[in-house]
Amino acid sequence: MSNQGAAGTSPAELKSRSTIPRSFSEAVLPPNMAKTHAANNNMGVEYVLIFRFSATEKEESAKTFEQLVHKLARVGLATEVRQGEDHTLMVFIKIASLEHVYGEVYRSRVRDWIHGVRLTEPAQDVEASLNEDPLTDAERLLIIYQLITNDEKDGGAGIRPKTKRWPQVESIFALHDHVYNKHWLQKWSTNWQLNIEDLDEIRNKFGEKVAYYFAFEQTYFNFLIYPGVGGFLAWLLLDSFSPIFAVLACSWCVIFVEWWKHRERDLALRWGVRGVSNIESKRDEFEASHEIEDVATGEKQKTFPAWQRLQRQALQLPFAICAIAVLGSLIILCFVIEIFIGEVYDGPGKSVLTYLPVIILTTCMPFLTNAMTGLATRLNDYENYETASRYESALTAKLFVMNFITSYLGLILTAFVYVPFGKLLIPHLDVANVVARSYTDGKVPLEKSLDLYDINPDRLRKQVIYFAVTASIVNFATEVVVPYFKRQGTVKFRELTASRKRSGSKTEPSASANDVPEEREFLARVRSEAELTTYDVQSDLREMIIQFGYLSLFSVVWPLVPVSFLVNNWFELRADAFKICLEMQRPTPARADSIGPWLDALEFLTWLGSLTMGALTYMFSNDGVGPDGSPYTIKGWGLLLSIFLSEQIYLVSHKVVRYAISKIDSPGRQKERRARYLVREQFLSQSLGKLARAPTFSEVDDEKDVTITRESLEEEQRQSTLSTSTPEKKFWSRQQGWRETAKVGQAYITQSQPNEKESAQQKKEL
Amino acid sequence: MSNQGAAGTSPAELKSRSTIPRSFSEAVLPPNMAKTHAANNNMGVEYVLIFRFSATEKEESAKTFEQLVHKLARVGLATEVRQGEDHTLMVFIKIASLEHVYGEVYRSRVRDWIHGVRLTEPAQDVEASLNEDPLTDAERLLIIYQLITNDEKDGGAGIRPKTKRWPQVESIFALHDHVYNKHWLQKWSTNWQLNIEDLDEIRNKFGEKVAYYFAFEQTYFNFLIYPGVGGFLAWLLLDSFSPIFAVLACSWCVIFVEWWKHRERDLALRWGVRGVSNIESKRDEFEASHEIEDVATGEKQKTFPAWQRLQRQALQLPFAICAIAVLGSLIILCFVIEIFIGEVYDGPGKSVLTYLPVIILTTCMPFLTNAMTGLATRLNDYENYETASRYESALTAKLFVMNFITSYLGLILTAFVYVPFGKLLIPHLDVANVVARSYTDGKVPLEKSLDLYDINPDRLRKQVIYFAVTASIVNFATEVVVPYFKRQGTVKFRELTASRKRSGSKTEPSASANDVPEEREFLARVRSEAELTTYDVQSDLREMIIQFGYLSLFSVVWPLVPVSFLVNNWFELRADAFKICLEMQRPTPARADSIGPWLDALEFLTWLGSLTMGALTYMFSNDGVGPDGSPYTIKGWGLLLSIFLSEQIYLVSHKVVRYAISKIDSPGRQKERRARYLVREQFLSQSLGKLARAPTFSEVDDEKDVTITRESLEEEQRQSTLSTSTPEKKFWSRQQGWRETAKVGQAYITQSQPNEKESAQQKKEL
Repeated sequence: MSNQGAAGTSPAELKSRSTIPRSFSEAVLPPNMAKTHAANNNMGVEYVLIFRFSATEKEESAKTFEQLVHKLARVGLATEVRQGEDHTLMVFIKIASLEHVYGEVYRSRVRDWIHGVRLTEPAQDVEASLNEDPLTDAERLLIIYQLITNDEKDGGAGIRPKTKRWPQVESIFALHDHVYNKHWLQKWSTNWQLNIEDLDEIRNKFGEKVAYYFAFEQTYFNFLIYPGVGGFLAWLLLDSFSPIFAVLACSWCVIFVEWWKHRERDLALRWGVRGVSNIESKRDEFEASHEIEDVATGEKQKTFPAWQRLQRQALQLPFAICAIAVLGSLIILCFVIEIFIGEVYDGPGKSVLTYLPVIILTTCMPFLTNAMTGLATRLNDYENYETASRYESALTAKLFVMNFITSYLGLILTAFVYVPFGKLLIPHLDVANVVARSYTDGKVPLEKSLDLYDINPDRLRKQVIYFAVTASIVNFATEVVVPYFKRQGTVKFRELTASRKRSGSKTEPSASANDVPEEREFLARVRSEAELTTYDVQSDLREMIIQFGYLSLFSVVWPLVPVSFLVNNWFELRADAFKICLEMQRPTPARADSIGPWLDALEFLTWLGSLTMGALTYMFSNDGVGPDGSPYTIKGWGLLLSIFLSEQIYLVSHKVVRYAISKIDSPGRQKERRARYLVREQFLSQSLGKLARAPTFSEVDDEKDVTITRESLEEEQRQSTLSTSTPEKKFWSRQQGWRETAKVGQAYITQSQPNEKESAQQKKEL
Repeated sequence: MSNQGAAGTSPAELKSRSTIPRSFSEAVLPPNMAKTHAANNNMGVEYVLIFRFSATEKEESAKTFEQLVHKLARVGLATEVRQGEDHTLMVFIKIASLEHVYGEVYRSRVRDWIHGVRLTEPAQDVEASLNEDPLTDAERLLIIYQLITNDEKDGGAGIRPKTKRWPQVESIFALHDHVYNKHWLQKWSTNWQLNIEDLDEIRNKFGEKVAYYFAFEQTYFNFLIYPGVGGFLAWLLLDSFSPIFAVLACSWCVIFVEWWKHRERDLALRWGVRGVSNIESKRDEFEASHEIEDVATGEKQKTFPAWQRLQRQALQLPFAICAIAVLGSLIILCFVIEIFIGEVYDGPGKSVLTYLPVIILTTCMPFLTNAMTGLATRLNDYENYETASRYESALTAKLFVMNFITSYLGLILTAFVYVPFGKLLIPHLDVANVVARSYTDGKVPLEKSLDLYDINPDRLRKQVIYFAVTASIVNFATEVVVPYFKRQGTVKFRELTASRKRSGSKTEPSASANDVPEEREFLARVRSEAELTTYDVQSDLREMIIQFGYLSLFSVVWPLVPVSFLVNNWFELRADAFKICLEMQRPTPARADSIGPWLDALEFLTWLGSLTMGALTYMFSNDGVGPDGSPYTIKGWGLLLSIFLSEQIYLVSHKVVRYAISKIDSPGRQKERRARYLVREQFLSQSLGKLARAPTFSEVDDEKDVTITRESLEEEQRQSTLSTSTPEKKFWSRQQGWRETAKVGQAYITQSQPNEKESAQQKKEL
């Protein structure tokens, strides 16, 4: 329970303690970690490294293991080893030499500052810097992770799991802070909202990348309230396919996306990560083909030419076509079967055959999706991106194409093929009918003319309801509930087999057999965490984006879609916290300043939404689709006009909203402005100091001028004839000092005579 | 001719001279200016201030004049006064005290650096900074101008022409550098292209704002070559209204606009002005209604709340409606009259009446435009913008609406009203016909049925040719040739009246009567320059943007449009140089990092072009408009589809082009990168220095470990039972040093037994 104090300790509190830390460990480690006595803690372990050895090549494994531990020791990390399950060793890692950590922390902070990620220069020495801005859990873990994984030439140990160099290293993960997790889950299950401090806490514990997901999810949830209420009212009051609701929903999408960009930027400033994607180091797997010298800086850089990558990226086109063809044809097949069975076929076994499309989809789709994902990953590897974020971004784009097809194609087919062209297309299922007849011995009745087959216009609404409600629930179950019980089952099974093994003779004793009793509980926990899967924030984000897509593309079909999502996301947010805490390894902190490539997906869906909403509103306008099902006769120009107008509304509102939101002040921007202001003040005072050193000239000597300017205009004329060296010098020597200039000018004024108009005016006045 | 050396002296050459300037005047002034002896120079005069006094209120004028000269002297400026034409004094201004100039230069450079406009910190003292980066003519003139015009609290003299405080100050202008101008015009008239050094020269002489105009014009000219060639080929080979040409022209527009943005940014980096618009000072005329304290910085700022401005901006809507109504109705009126006379009316005086629309347009349009411009300016003043660039931007937007109507409405009416709806609308001129009949005593023949009136489909092409060729030539003449002869005439007229006056008796002698003979020529030149108008770069830019509009909106009508513009702009570029040198006062240098608001206009025209080109291509496709003139029957869906597709092509190509261009390296970017790299290097070496001061820990003591790790696993077990204080300490004390960890781990590996699968495999191998 003592850990709770650390989680709740704010930077301000830490600062208010003694300014000079009594020991260095106190400066780097959170205060409780060095002196905690509770049994329920993580023993000060920062990371656990799982080393899988081969029982048949013991010598080689032993040698590699020695190297591993030595390398860790050389970067200032202390290690302890314990036995893991199934031929693995668990290497526990903590900080031994602060020198390395200091170096890494300070280098990282200075680099951030130079690249504009940090707004203020880090303090003049490391201790002061750490006092000013204490390390968060996430920052400490990230730095230790970098010590372990960075290349040796960059001061790391160079140990990265599952690479060519270290195939034996299965994983490196941090241990869950169970006390904090419990506190976290308890808090969330009672609060209905996450506030900014909650997000800060997530960021401090799990890093910015995970925190960004929760921030997105929370912002999305908050925004859903508006279309939720609006949708409910529309459902009550408005006609179905109301253009008003469509316009409001589209505008809402635009505002949400732009607001999120604003929010994202604000959070990046708050968390001091703005622009981190620009200072990323190269991926390990990146293979440079050229070494070029930057013309500007003279730095030698290993690069992979853009045109070469472009050639490889050209493969994306066949990939996309292939994905569309493979996944699309499956969906179309199921679609056709479904319609055939539902509306054409009338033979025996209809009640069973109805499930055929579902069965085909659920069996074939995962298989195909996995195959395509594999292909996408290989293609992405081949494209050879330099940084992890570029790689991720490119992969996301590929996966998004697939997700788009699997998620929306069914609905698009229903809305834009089945409903308008249904009457034309269903008769072409005639062939199928004939085949069906021959299979069913002509039991399919012929007397029902194909022209009479009614298309089922309510199908679209039913489908949307399915995706908005049923699929959400199913998804929630497969994501959270099933894995939980699966894991419980696995644990039970393992215990059973272990006890069976113990009762047997020649098999080796279980890993826990050698445990010291006082460590038993802790090691058991570590062993179970070692078996958890790693958390992939991208897949959770993808789920949200796809959900947003249903909203932006099809919510006009059934205005209660946002209401359903609102309810779903309340649970989703908490389920994700639950998942991270209990079903996944603690995610290794990663920095990010954005949800990255998904922003593009959001913008794309919003834009496409303006087209589909416009089209749907027109196509189903005038209550054209009632339960009796006679679709409104769609006119080409009407459809195109509504799409065109809808797109123009989108384009204009996009510009306006972006401009308006850019004007909004925010805490992050204020922080940035304050930092800039302080820097400015500092430099301006410096520059004034420099200016004082500039040579000073005597001020314009007023007194001297007074005595000189007793000369008349004639005197001035005389002076001009003096033989001064150049015309220029002569020109400037005629009037010495400003008083002479004034006198001469005044003389000109006095001499002047009013012109005709002026003199006429003067006369009049007289 | 000695000035020519200065103009051609590169910064490098200046640097290669002695590093410490022999005198301060040498440091600030260009080397030739301090010692030139040529008669044809400007006498070292930086600015001429025209002071208009009243011959009827001589005392007050004399007092004000004294104040003026005193104020100038107090900011370190020397003055000479000479008589000007018509009750004016010419005050010549040059630098007297370098202290003030130094201060201004250095403050300006430091401010630039702090706000990120300059990439490198200015050198530690002023002299070094000036040596490193010598003042250009433009920078020097700008700084002196700021000394004259800045508020007194900001260290200036506070003298701004034609303000409430100084209504007598008519203008402040720099003198033309005639030697340079001659050289410039000669060079341009022989070269067919401006290169980057020419632009640098313009920037050094006239400031960035003017240089940006020429850079834009040159970039535009270079880009015009592609559609010029393409258009010529299309004219030869393709059908009229070819979709191929339309797509190419639209893509060209997109590429041009995006390339210009890239180029603009590059030039801003080259000239060290990137982001200057952000550090602009407030306009004089700005009236703050509130003083608020910035929550972030605590600075007190005088502001005008955005919502209050928004209320005032709301007046833009009635203004736009009014502009459209007034200008539009005039154009529509002329349009109707023209068609009526051309195609309906057949009565007497037709040959004379044909000119009626032209007469109405040329008489009423300038009057209306001026009235609307006045209204726009007043509205803009009322909107109370804080900085000059915001003000200019808002005014530009308003003027653009008017320019859009006057330039394109006629063509739009022809293309989208007259051609498609001509047959429907012309019969409605029936009323006019009836009226005409009653006026012409029934001489208008009735037998010609209104249904038979043919619309004249070649009208659109003729109109486009008119705008592309005739209007360009007329414009060129009114802009350059007419003013030139007008000026020559004025000079002649003035000479005549002067000689007449001299022969007369009681009128005052001409201003030149008192001139010293050796100054006569110089003063005459200054007097004539004083009468020139000031150069407004915005109006020249507007002309180019409007021209671009014809290209982007209507070039598909007549593919030779770009060819015509290509020829026109070769002359335009040179005529503008001629105009600046001979017909205008030397422009006061101004900094800018963009062509500003016109960028938005370019983007808007490109977008709108995608719509009009799509529509025109469809409407006149299939060679529907031949000389016989029967317009293709336009289908709503076809028109909408082509517009829609065209817009999608625009949107996609816009994204792609922007992305591609963002990847292009450029000298400016290289310069930026180099500067960043140097800063980075500097700070990293500093940070390494700091790191050395961090406390050092002894490295992992390999040797010591060796002696300790002679213990066995049993020893390790024993140690664990020792009563160390906490479980954590116990946990970490079991293995002392990495060698022990390695040993223990190796022991685990040795103990392990292969599992079934592995042992099976081992057996097989055996």
